[in-house]
Amino acid sequence: MYWGIYKMDTNFKKLDNIINEIEDINKEIIIQADKRMTSLAKPLKSLGKLEEIAIKLSGITGKVKNKLTKKIVIIMCSDNGVIEEGVASAPQSVTLAQTINFTKGLTGVAVLAKANNTELMVVDVGINCDFNHPDVINKKIRKSTYNIAQEPAMSYEEAVKAMLIGIESVKNAKDLGYEILGVGEMGIGNTSTSSAVLSTLISIEVEDVVGRGGGITDEAFENKKKVIKKAIKINNPIKDDPIDVVSKVGGFDIAAMAGVFLGAAYYKIPVVIDGFISVVAALIAFRLNPKTRDYMFTSHGSRELGFKVAMKELNLSPMLNLDMALGEGSGCPLAFSIIDSACAVMNNMATFEEAEINDSYLDELKEMYNV
Amino acid sequence: MYWGIYKMDTNFKKLDNIINEIEDINKEIIIQADKRMTSLAKPLKSLGKLEEIAIKLSGITGKVKNKLTKKIVIIMCSDNGVIEEGVASAPQSVTLAQTINFTKGLTGVAVLAKANNTELMVVDVGINCDFNHPDVINKKIRKSTYNIAQEPAMSYEEAVKAMLIGIESVKNAKDLGYEILGVGEMGIGNTSTSSAVLSTLISIEVEDVVGRGGGITDEAFENKKKVIKKAIKINNPIKDDPIDVVSKVGGFDIAAMAGVFLGAAYYKIPVVIDGFISVVAALIAFRLNPKTRDYMFTSHGSRELGFKVAMKELNLSPMLNLDMALGEGSGCPLAFSIIDSACAVMNNMATFEEAEINDSYLDELKEMYNV
Repeated sequence: MYWGIYKMDTNFKKLDNIINEIEDINKEIIIQADKRMTSLAKPLKSLGKLEEIAIKLSGITGKVKNKLTKKIVIIMCSDNGVIEEGVASAPQSVTLAQTINFTKGLTGVAVLAKANNTELMVVDVGINCDFNHPDVINKKIRKSTYNIAQEPAMSYEEAVKAMLIGIESVKNAKDLGYEILGVGEMGIGNTSTSSAVLSTLISIEVEDVVGRGGGITDEAFENKKKVIKKAIKINNPIKDDPIDVVSKVGGFDIAAMAGVFLGAAYYKIPVVIDGFISVVAALIAFRLNPKTRDYMFTSHGSRELGFKVAMKELNLSPMLNLDMALGEGSGCPLAFSIIDSACAVMNNMATFEEAEINDSYLDELKEMYNV
Repeated sequence: MYWGIYKMDTNFKKLDNIINEIEDINKEIIIQADKRMTSLAKPLKSLGKLEEIAIKLSGITGKVKNKLTKKIVIIMCSDNGVIEEGVASAPQSVTLAQTINFTKGLTGVAVLAKANNTELMVVDVGINCDFNHPDVINKKIRKSTYNIAQEPAMSYEEAVKAMLIGIESVKNAKDLGYEILGVGEMGIGNTSTSSAVLSTLISIEVEDVVGRGGGITDEAFENKKKVIKKAIKINNPIKDDPIDVVSKVGGFDIAAMAGVFLGAAYYKIPVVIDGFISVVAALIAFRLNPKTRDYMFTSHGSRELGFKVAMKELNLSPMLNLDMALGEGSGCPLAFSIIDSACAVMNNMATFEEAEINDSYLDELKEMYNV
């Protein structure tokens, strides 16, 4: 890990401590949970990922049986200087408009959250205007990042600050009683920054990770790839230092989201990855400390090209196959409902013994019913 | 279609009428629903299958906005004579034991149903004993089918009767106010019968559709394949007559489940496919009338080998990627929650106009917030 000259910075020390103090999940409870799951009245492993989800959750909470009542999606909202290059189909002001719409319950994630008993925490980490709203947490680092095709998106210190904001958001959510988190975003231009980060982190060609984001023309798509390549070339991010990478070619949103993944592991709260931008943030956290992955759950498999690449790098696989590519954290509430079902299996299914699937009961049935 | 000598049979006429009277979905409402979905404030088609689900539902119910409150999984329970050949890992009496456990809320599907606000309708179409239970609907055709490796599972008339039982179950569910159905089963040995049906219907090698079902040894797996091949060879089912196929190498459960898919289309109720056995039943219904597919929704992608083959034949794809292989209808309640979310998108998301994502509002925001 390349920490360079930042080792003396107070914020950096704080972040570094948190990263290093992430604890292992509870392996003894995992063994107990696995044992109970195996004892349930069903063919071995026949509930597939539902079983894995319930067991993984046990390791995080330290309890075999779990019920997650309070759920929230943390949405990091920020603008990206790179939109100057014409990489996005929507105007920058849509970031602000949709941030306000989250609070009104009007967007995709807001509607899906409500349908799945989930709340939203909307955080402004860098919307490009002077903006205060009672239902948006103002943690603005600065109005928009710089244009990565011209210069680094932000300083290293700003990236550290954004990550700490993400971690602090988790602490606040935990203090408010939330038991599971989702990680979403709003920021026009952020599929470009995410692609640049991913391409750098795993040393893969830009062509193999860039998708069309919110939907652009062929011409704009070619331009998008050129811009991302240029951003990587001129900024020369240090692959092995994910903070350097996100500061040079990322965005405030991605950095803060990576902070949420770090914070979830640090505070031992299960956290759900949404789509492309969310999984890139998860990968940053994983690179900073691989233990973070033990606290992560997937949701849907995004259509964005880079999504699969990042998922594979994390060795995770999505639980939903819905061909979505909206972002906002929209997959998370759907995943919460599946995770609830996984908990129900662990908590409420009968063991073979309880289900009386044993010779004496079967003999009894045979006699009773003249089998 | 080969109807042979059965054209004069009353039950057959009844079934044939129902099959032929299945109506098209409402294409005008589909157009309206598609229009509304396109007008919602999100990149075009960015909610993927959630959009398709909501639109498909509109075509079935004839309403753009839908809310499905009462949900039920219909579980067809029956025994299979073929277990004499050692094709299953569990003893036959488990069919009875689990049928009783459904009513006690102890099995996988029962727990997942409860967690997803769903009820169960448990129907005995051929459990191998004299059995009456207040919470199990007794529609027993006969105690177990015959051993398909020796003779046809049932007569053509019995297959017709089983299908009519499935159709009648849908009518009853509809009369009780249920708005969406799932199709599950319990019957030791029914992955063997399903494999035989699928292999015949699509003229594919037995090896390409047979999985390990509830979990059997390598030796038993080889035997299972041999038994299925023998069943097809000695019974020589008529590929183009799905009723002949299910009568000769299928089971009462599969035939009754096919009836549920037919009934769902006939009574215009959305119906959810579960795993392997369920999708084979769906394929039988589709072959009897391709319009039935317009009323079908998927749930999870089963691990069973033949599942993908049957899904592909139906040109459908699962919405959940959970690596499950339990059966019972266990994937259906999970799908219901996703379908609820799809309805929420259609019903509650703002249009671009309502979300005020337009030039004048964005200009207003710019002025307000000094963008």
